[in-house]
Amino acid sequence: MSTSAPESATANRQFTLAAHPTGMPNESDFNLVESPVPSPGEGELVLQTLYLSVDPYMRGRMTGVRTYADPVKIGEVMVGGAVGRVTQSNHPKFRPGDVVEGYWGWQEWAVSNGEGLRKLDPSLAPISTALGVLGMPGMTAYFGLLDICKPQAGETVLVSGGAGAVGSLVGQIAKIKGCRAVGIAGSDDKVRHMVEDLGIDAGFNYKTTDDYVAKYKELCPNGVDCYFDNVGGKITEAVLPVLNVRARIAICGQIAMYNQSRPDLCTPPFPYLLTKQAKAEGFLVFQFFDRFREGLTQMAQWIREGKIKYREQVVEGFENTPRALIGLLSGENTGKMLVKVAD
Amino acid sequence: MSTSAPESATANRQFTLAAHPTGMPNESDFNLVESPVPSPGEGELVLQTLYLSVDPYMRGRMTGVRTYADPVKIGEVMVGGAVGRVTQSNHPKFRPGDVVEGYWGWQEWAVSNGEGLRKLDPSLAPISTALGVLGMPGMTAYFGLLDICKPQAGETVLVSGGAGAVGSLVGQIAKIKGCRAVGIAGSDDKVRHMVEDLGIDAGFNYKTTDDYVAKYKELCPNGVDCYFDNVGGKITEAVLPVLNVRARIAICGQIAMYNQSRPDLCTPPFPYLLTKQAKAEGFLVFQFFDRFREGLTQMAQWIREGKIKYREQVVEGFENTPRALIGLLSGENTGKMLVKVAD
Repeated sequence: MSTSAPESATANRQFTLAAHPTGMPNESDFNLVESPVPSPGEGELVLQTLYLSVDPYMRGRMTGVRTYADPVKIGEVMVGGAVGRVTQSNHPKFRPGDVVEGYWGWQEWAVSNGEGLRKLDPSLAPISTALGVLGMPGMTAYFGLLDICKPQAGETVLVSGGAGAVGSLVGQIAKIKGCRAVGIAGSDDKVRHMVEDLGIDAGFNYKTTDDYVAKYKELCPNGVDCYFDNVGGKITEAVLPVLNVRARIAICGQIAMYNQSRPDLCTPPFPYLLTKQAKAEGFLVFQFFDRFREGLTQMAQWIREGKIKYREQVVEGFENTPRALIGLLSGENTGKMLVKVAD
Repeated sequence: MSTSAPESATANRQFTLAAHPTGMPNESDFNLVESPVPSPGEGELVLQTLYLSVDPYMRGRMTGVRTYADPVKIGEVMVGGAVGRVTQSNHPKFRPGDVVEGYWGWQEWAVSNGEGLRKLDPSLAPISTALGVLGMPGMTAYFGLLDICKPQAGETVLVSGGAGAVGSLVGQIAKIKGCRAVGIAGSDDKVRHMVEDLGIDAGFNYKTTDDYVAKYKELCPNGVDCYFDNVGGKITEAVLPVLNVRARIAICGQIAMYNQSRPDLCTPPFPYLLTKQAKAEGFLVFQFFDRFREGLTQMAQWIREGKIKYREQVVEGFENTPRALIGLLSGENTGKMLVKVAD
């Protein structure tokens, strides 16, 4: 069954990559292009984008260098997670009106064969949460903390990027598990949010702190057992001297370095890992893909019980997507940064 | 029952710590002192040292800074593993003539209450092996590789310090497990020893190699799955770009840095661990203490089967112990470095 596209839609706006940036991206690194709204072929469906996700990992896709995923090529539509509504469908499993989450990137309309789409139930949770607490960032916090760090009750969990989409959940999950949770963030308001709104034990503003090691010792008087690293750089370097024996570091992101064409040199961490019998482990959320149902169910339950709170920072308008990403990479967001594209 | 000390022994020579060295230790950092040969008290026994072990970790004990163990204080006898013979005993479990391994440090005679002593059977293996392949270095290689790296058949295992007491065993265990084993060492003769005598697949002399990354790519054409790190520094930094997805690094030693009062800065490794979903884990052999019987039994069997070969480099004379340690820290040894103190 095929239905016609809404009359109002005459063009599909897309952001394609215009240049591989060095340093912080600029809006000029993207081109806003228009193409016809797509029509579904056999077995396909058409999606109207409602929300776009902006996430730190996107910086890595813009470099033109393969990391764990293929880079976006010049002229290609920028990648990313999205929530949208099915408007036309020749696919047996999707009907017009269905709301889905998927990975169709920075465009207002997309055609899909249904692969990788997750149907959402708008009566269970706001659909935007499929890009945040009940989506990739939520699963990143859940599995990264619980599977890589394995925090035990009574231990101290330190999290950098502690007010971000992932970090704000890490701190709260640490509290649920009976740990002392300490967050690092880039503004006094974010610190207040972590402590007063989210119930994290302590936090500090790294931009107004000179001596990170001293601050860690003050806020983590029993040392650091688990460090969930979203940022890297000096903030991470200073954690090494305060690690406890058998400490676990989950390396989730290194946002402080994403815009450095050549990273600042650091004190070697391996001697610290050796004397503390500690581990540092990088992970990608997709390695836990088979267990997402477990994670989503648990997170949804914690939200219902009031144990997990989340904040969304919503930028209005498709045309502002590049600016939203640049803002995210500049640390402007508290909680999950989203772009609202359509109602 | 107490028996008298040998008539010949009139004095107990000991090396005490004279100074906390900065950089490479000198012989003047130790004092050779004499005290009376000790007598056993109630429940005690007297040991005559036959072999002393010199090991890289000893450099850390000399700094005066607590790492995972208490440092040796100025004026205290230098610590270390030893093999000796019981000459007098008031202890119910030890008799004169028993040969034991323990941790009584750099002295020709020692008194002990029996704690931490391991009785050896000289008919099963040369007693010196209790300080090497059938002792702490052997267990370090066995558990560090098998439990931290968990190598799988067909994978590539790279080991730095590959001709040393631990590294030479790591490479051979990797071969037993069906891996490609590649060793890094500091002389052409050590490389020849690894490949021709020990059966390692490939090796190279880091002192005559400029581009480590290129050399790793040449010798590890399928990338590096497991890296057993004994040295740290530039050799380790260059491994990061050639790690495979889900690689495991066992941090066993960082000998390249032990004599640096301030370590050279390095390229941050965490971004590599992140994109490769890799882990780096420091360990100390004592965390596997409860399983030493398993490890010793397996290593002894592999030796009997000819699958594990070992080399000892024996320095004669107690008075040469400081020089032996300095030689070890300078990379002069192939295999296990020992001091023979008495027959």
